[in-house]
Amino acid sequence: MLERIKRIFIGPPLENEALQGEKYGVVWGLPVLASDAISSVAYAVEEILLALVPILGFASYHYMLIICGLILSLLVILVFSYSQTIENYPNGGGAFIVASDNLGKTAGVTAGAALAIDYILTVAVSVSSGVEQLTSAFVSLRPYTVPICVVLVLVLMLGNLRGIRESSRIFGMPTYAFILGIIVMIFAGFIKLRTGYVPDTAVIQSTGTVSTFLLLRAFSNGCSALTGVEAVSNGVPNFREPSVKNAKRVLLLLGILVIITFAGVAVLVNMYHIVPGDSAVIIQLASKIFGRNFAFYYVTATTFIILIIASNTAYSDFPLLMSVMAKSGYVPHQFGMRGDRLSFSNGIVSLSAIAIMLIVIFRARVKALIGLYAIGVFISFTLSQTGMFKKWHKEKSKNWKLKAAVNGIGAMATAVVVVIISMTKFSEGAWAVIIVLPIAVYCMLHIKKHYEDVADQLRINKEQIGQVQFRKDYNNIRVIVPIESVNKASVRALRYAQSISDNIVAFNVSIDEERAEKIKNQYDMLDIDIPLVVQYSPYRKIVEPLLKFIDSEEYNYQEGEIITVILPQFIVTKGWHQILHNRTRVYVEKQLLKYKHIVVATMPYQLKK
Amino acid sequence: MLERIKRIFIGPPLENEALQGEKYGVVWGLPVLASDAISSVAYAVEEILLALVPILGFASYHYMLIICGLILSLLVILVFSYSQTIENYPNGGGAFIVASDNLGKTAGVTAGAALAIDYILTVAVSVSSGVEQLTSAFVSLRPYTVPICVVLVLVLMLGNLRGIRESSRIFGMPTYAFILGIIVMIFAGFIKLRTGYVPDTAVIQSTGTVSTFLLLRAFSNGCSALTGVEAVSNGVPNFREPSVKNAKRVLLLLGILVIITFAGVAVLVNMYHIVPGDSAVIIQLASKIFGRNFAFYYVTATTFIILIIASNTAYSDFPLLMSVMAKSGYVPHQFGMRGDRLSFSNGIVSLSAIAIMLIVIFRARVKALIGLYAIGVFISFTLSQTGMFKKWHKEKSKNWKLKAAVNGIGAMATAVVVVIISMTKFSEGAWAVIIVLPIAVYCMLHIKKHYEDVADQLRINKEQIGQVQFRKDYNNIRVIVPIESVNKASVRALRYAQSISDNIVAFNVSIDEERAEKIKNQYDMLDIDIPLVVQYSPYRKIVEPLLKFIDSEEYNYQEGEIITVILPQFIVTKGWHQILHNRTRVYVEKQLLKYKHIVVATMPYQLKK
Repeated sequence: MLERIKRIFIGPPLENEALQGEKYGVVWGLPVLASDAISSVAYAVEEILLALVPILGFASYHYMLIICGLILSLLVILVFSYSQTIENYPNGGGAFIVASDNLGKTAGVTAGAALAIDYILTVAVSVSSGVEQLTSAFVSLRPYTVPICVVLVLVLMLGNLRGIRESSRIFGMPTYAFILGIIVMIFAGFIKLRTGYVPDTAVIQSTGTVSTFLLLRAFSNGCSALTGVEAVSNGVPNFREPSVKNAKRVLLLLGILVIITFAGVAVLVNMYHIVPGDSAVIIQLASKIFGRNFAFYYVTATTFIILIIASNTAYSDFPLLMSVMAKSGYVPHQFGMRGDRLSFSNGIVSLSAIAIMLIVIFRARVKALIGLYAIGVFISFTLSQTGMFKKWHKEKSKNWKLKAAVNGIGAMATAVVVVIISMTKFSEGAWAVIIVLPIAVYCMLHIKKHYEDVADQLRINKEQIGQVQFRKDYNNIRVIVPIESVNKASVRALRYAQSISDNIVAFNVSIDEERAEKIKNQYDMLDIDIPLVVQYSPYRKIVEPLLKFIDSEEYNYQEGEIITVILPQFIVTKGWHQILHNRTRVYVEKQLLKYKHIVVATMPYQLKK
Repeated sequence: MLERIKRIFIGPPLENEALQGEKYGVVWGLPVLASDAISSVAYAVEEILLALVPILGFASYHYMLIICGLILSLLVILVFSYSQTIENYPNGGGAFIVASDNLGKTAGVTAGAALAIDYILTVAVSVSSGVEQLTSAFVSLRPYTVPICVVLVLVLMLGNLRGIRESSRIFGMPTYAFILGIIVMIFAGFIKLRTGYVPDTAVIQSTGTVSTFLLLRAFSNGCSALTGVEAVSNGVPNFREPSVKNAKRVLLLLGILVIITFAGVAVLVNMYHIVPGDSAVIIQLASKIFGRNFAFYYVTATTFIILIIASNTAYSDFPLLMSVMAKSGYVPHQFGMRGDRLSFSNGIVSLSAIAIMLIVIFRARVKALIGLYAIGVFISFTLSQTGMFKKWHKEKSKNWKLKAAVNGIGAMATAVVVVIISMTKFSEGAWAVIIVLPIAVYCMLHIKKHYEDVADQLRINKEQIGQVQFRKDYNNIRVIVPIESVNKASVRALRYAQSISDNIVAFNVSIDEERAEKIKNQYDMLDIDIPLVVQYSPYRKIVEPLLKFIDSEEYNYQEGEIITVILPQFIVTKGWHQILHNRTRVYVEKQLLKYKHIVVATMPYQLKK
């Protein structure tokens, strides 16, 4: 039943071999991995202006263009840097792998954790901001903001659980639709100005003077446009062969598309004198260029959709990052297992669950979430680029100085951004990330330690084999069969016991004399040649009397002997019947497995109705 | 940790022997079992007037007195009837047992289910109405009505989980305090009138004429005063020896106390011309008699507390009723087990959980809940009295005609009340009970059927023993040891296998060729004389390939053979470590136990850190 519902939503299971077919090429890889970066065109210019306009008034546009120029330069640096990363790390993992390899495990885990935090925030922020746009258009939906966000996250989750290829098609189309709309709008905007259109000039008063802090704040806001660039290098294994070539192409295309659209929008916003206000800057721009026709609604609709879809980059990369970290043992193994549809389902579900938690806690208020955002990505940028720089320096391969220079500049630039964001956004939430990050790193290192401990303790070599030896003497296998009453299930268990051992005790715990007598009589009637021990349990417990009996002189347990406890268990036919029976067996099993001299066996007895 | 928190709240576990000491005598039994009935003094007169006054105006008081007289006559009948029940059914169970014994199991289950529904409603209604009084005094608390109710239910739950005796002390005191206050108030009220006080007479206009339906409605409202009378007969086993005598005394005392207080309050409300309005009738009465002095606040405070405490009758009887029904197999066995403190903890927790659910769903609105109330009790009254009547008729023991007359009159009177309540309160919620009741009865009969099926299938006699026989041939015990990798845990499991059988296969499921090769090499290195079978699982499953292997020609399974599957399992030291490991073993065990030819054994390997 549950299984069937699952199939409807996420499709039939896929074989391991299907994995290659589940990967994407350039055409569908681009929209999946670029949606985050490209979606920032919808809000980055606005975020920059929002920081400047209230203080600088009309002068803001001048500074906005300079800041956009800086951000796009940073983008160019990152594209080159990450292109080198892709080439050298074809198995993905991005910052985590690069930093681990070259800067040690703490740096690697820090980069991984920072990135993971940012992916979660990407989902929360982009869904919340998409819905914010929706509810500013349809005010009657506003009371349902949080439920709408939650439903959208669940839709993203299901789409991604269906598998890589299907999700790339589901979520790829709207990205292309958005890019197309923006490019057409930019062309139309320039043509309109050429053909003599003169936009109104709103006079906006300045209320203060320009300060370094103000410009840095505006710059920090704009830097959110650069999140998502690392996605391509993380996602290399998701590409079809030749994966490195495909990934590099996608990264280059992503860079070109962001530069064209971002720069185009920035210049037009300047020329059309768009003032950030009630309506989003990009929507105002579309309105001025197109008027209220089909093209306007097209841009509005695709903008809403791209903001939601932007989180799909996180859905593509977070599970992959987690699986890579799981393979290294820094996060629970379960993140490394592919689900029925070959997607890393645990990663997808966890990402959704935490994002929903954040959305509910922050009631989907973008302003509250945005302060937490972007710092994680830039920390991982810095560590990753520093790692690459160190790698070149160490290897000293051909052209190493040029390559080191590219990554070195990337590292420095992003490190500066980390400092700027920490300073200007500290009070807005960046502090929370700065607290959570070391905790996450600590936990991850601790998890790794646990896995290593387990592996060390389980490892065995040829010499040690001899030490694991029980005397092969049938009389030495001792068996206890706890029975609740005399019935077919318990008799079957006793019979089974007789077939593996000659040293068997049937054991019963009674809570009063009356029941003890009753079971003794029934047992005698059976005429079975196994002694029955009946114990009285004053606290209505089961495991304790059994352990006490094993320790008793009567039982005469010898060090090194293995005791097999055989639990009779009748198995009901229908699931709901289980709630009508105690889970005693499961409890007893769990308790007994704590003792190394006890093996717990369960003898099932299937009921027929 | 959790254990320690539990101990603080509910105390250390008690031995079975402590049960006798946990029972109560007359002094503490009275307040526990009478609180429900006695608390109705706080609202029954008001409920009657609320039905009459808006229509009949001043004439209401006349009819109110008649109705109160009828209700008290009904009470007298019930006290006599139930006194006979107590004597004949010293093991408690009340209506359920009496109806089952004499009218058949469907009637018994109906009586039990009706009573159970009413106990749940008692908790929801009395806590909600107590808090309603509180919030009408402290308006600022009103937004927190639901949370306050929930907390109070949890307090009642914890108090009752502490055990019978402690809860009877905790909740007994306030009942006596309330009774004392009311009796003093009645005396003071009469003395005040004697000494010349003339109350103001408010003139209330009538808006309609008296009708049968109106009077029946008022009567139905008043009948809620009679819920709780059955509690004593249900609770006989909770009394100290001589339990029958003690229970009968308590029932008699309860009757006398309710008659004195109820009649006293009704007469005084009439004489003082209290008009139901914003403030509760009983509070208005106290105000007129005492003025605003200590005595007034005493009555107000004890009234609030008694309304909360009234639910304690339900807490005393619901778990007992469930345990009796569990012993007969109509509700899950778990209700029949005593917890650490010898209380029937599952019943207490379920009662609290459902009551909280009702409170949350109905947002603690008493008006919405009260319509559901009382009909269940009267259905069980009727069935119980009819059962007693039939019993006398069948047995024809000494004085049987008199006894049959007492119970016959009780049955008729309560049957009439059932009809009246169904008619007058149908649209106010009684319909819901009328729907839920048959569903509950159906489920209970179904549960009974399941338990009987299970018992039939498990029952064994001496002749059948011979049929349960596995050949005692060691080569015939076949063992499969599924191993995930070559490690100490799996080697230990293999060694154990060797000590019980000569026919062993190690079995591994790999998801790719690479891992398959790796494990084969490691295994060969071990130089162990058990063959290893490696299977490839395209869907990343484990159980299916194992079952397929068992069915394969290669394995050559013969009908009747038992296969013991030994699962190696390392056991972590700390609870939280469990989340870092798959629950594969539990899953595999559950799946394999569906097959009757498979015994599942778990070989633990304890880690040290």
